[in-house]
Amino acid sequence: MRILGIDPGVATIGFGLIEADRANVRLVQYGVITTPAGLPLSNRLYQISQDMSQLLDQFKPQEMAVEELFFSKNITTGIAVAHGRGVILLEAERAGVPAFEYTPMQVKQAVAGYGGAEKKQVMLMTQRLLKMKKIPRPDDAADALAIAICHGRSATSLLNTERRFDPRRYDTR
Amino acid sequence: MRILGIDPGVATIGFGLIEADRANVRLVQYGVITTPAGLPLSNRLYQISQDMSQLLDQFKPQEMAVEELFFSKNITTGIAVAHGRGVILLEAERAGVPAFEYTPMQVKQAVAGYGGAEKKQVMLMTQRLLKMKKIPRPDDAADALAIAICHGRSATSLLNTERRFDPRRYDTR
Repeated sequence: MRILGIDPGVATIGFGLIEADRANVRLVQYGVITTPAGLPLSNRLYQISQDMSQLLDQFKPQEMAVEELFFSKNITTGIAVAHGRGVILLEAERAGVPAFEYTPMQVKQAVAGYGGAEKKQVMLMTQRLLKMKKIPRPDDAADALAIAICHGRSATSLLNTERRFDPRRYDTR
Repeated sequence: MRILGIDPGVATIGFGLIEADRANVRLVQYGVITTPAGLPLSNRLYQISQDMSQLLDQFKPQEMAVEELFFSKNITTGIAVAHGRGVILLEAERAGVPAFEYTPMQVKQAVAGYGGAEKKQVMLMTQRLLKMKKIPRPDDAADALAIAICHGRSATSLLNTERRFDPRRYDTR
C-alpha cells in the first residue's frame, strides 16, 4: 500500500511517501512544502493547496495519514497549523484519497514501540525501518515519514485498528 | 463597496452580503452554509469549499471580512473552526477577493459603538442599520452581517484603519 504521511503546518509541511505491506515499509520519497513568511495567510494557504494537489497527483498515494493537533504548547501556532491542516484535508478529499489521523503518542508507539519515546528515538527508528543512511532532514519530513509508517503498520495489521477521521470527535459549532 | 462578511465554522458558516459607502450600509443577502455532522471532516471541508466558491462566484464581493478566532472557551471547537476558516480563506484567495479580519471586540465597537456590547445589542444594531424588520436569523448569519458592517465602516472611512491579514501575527512553525 502506497501511503503519504503529512506533518501539517503553514510555514513548513513535511511529507513522506512509503510503500507498506504487513512485513515491511519501504521509502519512496520525502521532503517539505514551504511558504514564505512575508505573505498573507490566505495566499500561503493557496500555495499549500497547489503544492498538495501536485504531490497527490504525482505520487498517487492510496491513503494519507496526517498528524493530529495538540495545543498544549502554543495556541497561536496551533491556530495557524489548523488553517493549513484544513487545506491539506480538503486536497485529500478533492483527490479522493482517504485521510487518517494519529496522535503523536500513537506515532511514537507504532515506530519506537513506546508512546513516551523521545523524538530522537523515533527518528532513529524511522531511519532504520526505511533503511536510510542518515536521519531524514528536515525534522518535518522525518515526522511525516514516521506518521506514514504508523499508518502502514496499522492499516496492514490483521488487527486493523486504524480509524477514519471521525467528525464527532470535533465539537463543532 | 460590495462586502461579504463570514462567520467561520465547520457545522455552520454564516454569510452576509452588504453594499457599503461612507454614509450607509445596505442589505443584499444573508444566510448559512451547513455541513452534516455525520460526515468525515475532510468531506465537510470539501463541501465548504464548494459552497464558498459558489457564493463568491454568485455574489462577486469586492472584499471579504472574516471573524478572527479566539480559543478562550473551547479549544476543541477552535481546532475545527480553524480548519474551516483555512478553507474559507483559501477560496477567497482563489477568487481573488482580498480578505480582512476583525476581532469580536472590533465588530462590537463598529456596530454597537462599544467593544464590550452584549450580543443582543449588536444584533439589534445590525437589524437597525440594515433596515430589517426582524433580527436576522440564525445567529451565524447575524454575526456575518455585523462583521460585514464592521468592515464597511472601516474600509469606507477617511481614516482608513482596516488591515489586511498579517501573517506575522501568526506564530507559524
